[in-house]
Parts: sequence; C-alpha cells; structure tokens
Amino acid sequence: MAKNDEHITLGHGSGGQLTHDLIERMLLPRFDNPALHPLEDSALLPGRLAFTTDSFVVSPLFFPGGDIGKLAVCGTVNDLAVAGARPRWISCGLIIEEGFARVDLETILDSMADTAREVGAQIVTGDTKVVEHGSADGLFINTAGVGERYEMYEPSAPRPGDAILVSGPVGDHEAAIFHAREQVARRLHVTSDCAALWPLVEAMMQHAVHIRTMHDPTRGGLATVLCETAQRAGCSFEIDEAAVPVRHEVEGLCELVGFDPLYMACEGRLVAVVAADAAEAILATMRDHPLGEEAATIGRVLDEAKGACYLKTAVGGSRVLRMLAAQQLPRIC
Amino acid sequence: MAKNDEHITLGHGSGGQLTHDLIERMLLPRFDNPALHPLEDSALLPGRLAFTTDSFVVSPLFFPGGDIGKLAVCGTVNDLAVAGARPRWISCGLIIEEGFARVDLETILDSMADTAREVGAQIVTGDTKVVEHGSADGLFINTAGVGERYEMYEPSAPRPGDAILVSGPVGDHEAAIFHAREQVARRLHVTSDCAALWPLVEAMMQHAVHIRTMHDPTRGGLATVLCETAQRAGCSFEIDEAAVPVRHEVEGLCELVGFDPLYMACEGRLVAVVAADAAEAILATMRDHPLGEEAATIGRVLDEAKGACYLKTAVGGSRVLRMLAAQQLPRIC
Repeated sequence: MAKNDEHITLGHGSGGQLTHDLIERMLLPRFDNPALHPLEDSALLPGRLAFTTDSFVVSPLFFPGGDIGKLAVCGTVNDLAVAGARPRWISCGLIIEEGFARVDLETILDSMADTAREVGAQIVTGDTKVVEHGSADGLFINTAGVGERYEMYEPSAPRPGDAILVSGPVGDHEAAIFHAREQVARRLHVTSDCAALWPLVEAMMQHAVHIRTMHDPTRGGLATVLCETAQRAGCSFEIDEAAVPVRHEVEGLCELVGFDPLYMACEGRLVAVVAADAAEAILATMRDHPLGEEAATIGRVLDEAKGACYLKTAVGGSRVLRMLAAQQLPRIC
Repeated sequence: MAKNDEHITLGHGSGGQLTHDLIERMLLPRFDNPALHPLEDSALLPGRLAFTTDSFVVSPLFFPGGDIGKLAVCGTVNDLAVAGARPRWISCGLIIEEGFARVDLETILDSMADTAREVGAQIVTGDTKVVEHGSADGLFINTAGVGERYEMYEPSAPRPGDAILVSGPVGDHEAAIFHAREQVARRLHVTSDCAALWPLVEAMMQHAVHIRTMHDPTRGGLATVLCETAQRAGCSFEIDEAAVPVRHEVEGLCELVGFDPLYMACEGRLVAVVAADAAEAILATMRDHPLGEEAATIGRVLDEAKGACYLKTAVGGSRVLRMLAAQQLPRIC
C-alpha cells in the first residue's frame, strides 16, 4: 500500500472521488446489505420508511444564512426529501467541547427546533457527549432521520430524453462558508442557500410518477452528484453549462479564488431527472414555490449507456465531468 | 447566571445530575413532543418502532473487551433492546481526524459489522466527515438505530412489591477504560462487559407481560439509572448493597482510587423491574443465558410515592441514593 494510502486525509471527507473510494473499498464490503447497497442519501426500509444520517462539523458554526443547528436539521430533512419521504422523526447527537458557551448552544438548539417545526418534523431522541478542551472544535452535531415515503413516488432509472432540472442557483452555501472564513472581498455579500427542501418536494409530488430521481448536491457539488447518478444508473447525461444558474456574487468569488461553481456545495437545492413530456409542468411547479423560484432545466439524458456526464461549455466546447477529485474546502457542512 | 453556568463542562456529559439538568433546561423546552417527553433510551414511534441515537467519544479507542466500533453498535442495540425492540437498522456517522490510521479504521469498522451481524441488525446508511489534525481526537462515531418493538412488551409503572434485577456485575466497562488509561496496578485484569443485549432481552420476552421497565446502566451507572427510574415513575426503590454483583477486580480498583461501583458505567448490563411473582422465573431465564449468567435480585419497589432510591448498606445502615453529582471519568463511551 502506498504511503499516502495509510492514513485518512481531508479529501476522504470531501464528498468527491476519495469519499467514493472510501465507501466502495472500506464500508460497502463490510456492511453490504440490500438497503445500503443503492448508496442513496436515504436507506429505504419496509413500511415505506426512509432512514438517513449526517454528521455536521461546519466551520464557522455561524454563517450568513444559517448555523450548524439549522444545517444539521436541513441536511437530514433534505436526504429524506430527495427520497420522496416526509421528514417525521429526527435524532440529535451533540459532541461538545468543554468550555463551549452555553448561549451559543442555546441559539443553535433554537435553530434546530425552529427548522424541524417548519417542516413538521419532531426531534424525538438525542444524546450529549462532552470532550476535553482541545479534543473537538467547538461543536459537532449528528442528526439521523426517519421519514414516511410518499406513496406514488418510486425512484427509477433515467431514460434517454429525460430532462435534468435544478431547483436554484448552485454554490451559495460553500461560497458563504468560504467567505465567512476568509473574508476574501470586503463588499462581497454571499448567503448560504441552507433550507429544508421538503415543502418544495411535497409540491413536486403531484408529478411523482414522472420523476425518476432526486438528489441534493451537497459536498462535491452539482458535478459530483450528476456523475454519481449517471454512473449508478449506467446512462449518460449532457449538461448545458450556460443553463446552470449561478449567482453573480458566487461567480465573482469563484473567479477570484479559482473555484468551480459546479463543484461547490449547496444545502438547499435539489437536482431532479424527470420525464421529458412532464418537464415543463414540473419546472412550473418548482418555480411557483419559494424554494424553487430560480429553478432551471440544465440538461438531458443521452441515448448512451456509458454512465458519463458531459458538459457543453459556455464557449461551445464539450468535456467530460468527473467527481470532485480532491478537497475544494474542508468542513463546509 | 453564575459564571460557572455560562459554559458547558465535562460534567454535562457525565450522564448524571448535570446531564439531567441540561436535558431538562435546554433540550426539553425546545424540542418537547410526545415521543421525546418520556426521555427513555429510545423514542417509541408509531408502527411499534423504536428510534434511538448515541455518539461515542471513548478514549482510548481500543480497550480490553472491545473498541469504539463494538461499543457504538452495542450502545444503540442496547437502547433499542431495553425498549423491547429488536434492532433492525443502524446508521453509522464517522467523524475522523485527518491522519487517522487506515488500518485502525478498518479494525473498528470490522467490529461494527461483526457486532451488528451477531444481533441480526444491518448498517444501512452512513456519513463520513474528516476534520483537520487537532480538531478532533482520533475518531468519534455516532450510531442511530431503528428497531421493531416486541408485541407483548409494553413498559408500565413499577408497583409496590416488584423485584429489581440486574443482569450481571456492574462497573466492568468503566473500570476497564480507567485501567486502560491509567494503568493503576500492574497485575489488575479488568475487561469491559461491552455486549449487545438483544439476545438476552429476546429470551426474557417470554415473560414480557411481567416486565415493567428495563434500562441499561451506562454513564452514571446503576445508581443514576435507578434514581431516574424511581423519580420518573414516582415510586421508591430499596436496593440491597450486598446483593449488587461487583467483580473482585472492580471492587479492588474502586478501593484503590476511591470510585463507587454503583456509579460506574456498564455497557452490557440491564436492570429490570419485574412483577414479584414472576421474578424467580425471569431470573432463571436470565441466568440460563450467557449474557445473564451472573444476574441477581438487588432490591424491591416500596409502597411509597416519593420517587426516592434507598440503599440498604452492607453494614446495615440505610442512605438515599442520588444521581451521579459530578463527572466520575470523562469519555467512557
């Protein structure tokens, strides 16, 4: 084994290629079972339930548009939502560094409670651990969630001609975290898109039979989630770069620091593959909802079984998209 | 607010009085709902499901009798088991410090997989985060679990005359962790009792209608869990100190360092309140099982509504037991 394979690196937590490798090589062979195998955001359990978990280590804990508490509930709600599941029951596992300010914890717990309440979910079980000063960085939160899957929605393989939709501009969350940390430009205002997507998904469920898959492009960004979806389904996607909505401020920040918005994490967006003849109606439903006002059609499914994802670039070329190769920014969620 | 109330301390993670206060003052007012309110080890969901979570920050990661992986699965399995629930689906949330040895992670994941397999549970969903060197201490694991509650078991209030049983000697886990850290005496051999209790509970379920409550005495130990149970049920317990099984080695270590075995964490024991006329049969069933060979009757429920827990001491006196007041030892699980 090569020297650099002997230790876990920040890249293993990037959500990109190295995370993918760690799951494929270390986790799947040990834990493999029918519910885990699809490696989707949620495991599908009998009784039309969905079950998911996420740990949150975001730094800083408070950022424009949210805090770790809001993020922790949104993350788990969104993993359930993209499985077509109404979020019902959420757990709250706190790992707190000794000396953490009580008032900050209270603000964060308020965010968790408010966010859960907004989507009709309940925080029903929890656990609190405290570690010595220096053994953790402030606060880490784990949430797991159980949701009830919408009856008419059954994820299915994308088909040639299907449309690919995104619910809004990409990269806002990662840009907000980066800017909160680095203060790159004094006059730049970027706000995280951090939001609980269930209300949008619930509206979209009137078109459930026409929706093939939904995913939330978090770590690794839109490009990584599209590559994973294409690869798992064994079909190829074509994405029109000019059609991908990116906020002016995010584009500016990306140009300044050399990031690619296609790889920047969102925390309140979803990407859906839908039947071509229903695409317009689904897009209209999304745009009618506050969480999908800036939704757009960004590409289509090709008649090719390679599992590749092609990007038609803004300047008229075409290139193959890959999963995020290394870490763009650690601890974005 | 007093100065020492402004920050979170190690005591807030002790599982004792301060943890209790944090839950009562900070968490319950924000999250209160019917499923959370009983504050049991698992939330009881519709469809006879149980749902629970625990984070694990044990130090050291490897100890006599187990490692953090085994502990993480046992902890969640046991919270489900004492709710009378068969563990079915488990989540695995990893927070890894950059530079963690891959081979250690593999060993720990093997432990998780083996322990889950032994009780017929599946690890169906997970998440991996990596933080910079120095931002966490090696590895933290969160597990959440969903189980199916045994049909005939419905927890109920203890009644005067009920017997209190414990499934084996108390304090082994905390003693093993302490000794692994401090190496107090060269010739001392203490091994954690870390075990997944579902097989024992499944055997006990033949007596389900005679079992009032079950709990696992982890952080805070036997005394804390008895105080909590008595307080919530509004009935008083009398515990016979001489009847509480404690291993010779654990007693020796406690004498050496001034610990009280009644407050030392177990990770493979349960305490049950059962109907008096079924107590002998239930004890026999427990003793017939490898996980309950050293089970014992340790006390009874009194005809008093104070919610107190009295200890008949080995020397013939009597005193009131309280929840663990401060931290006995941090990061035991």
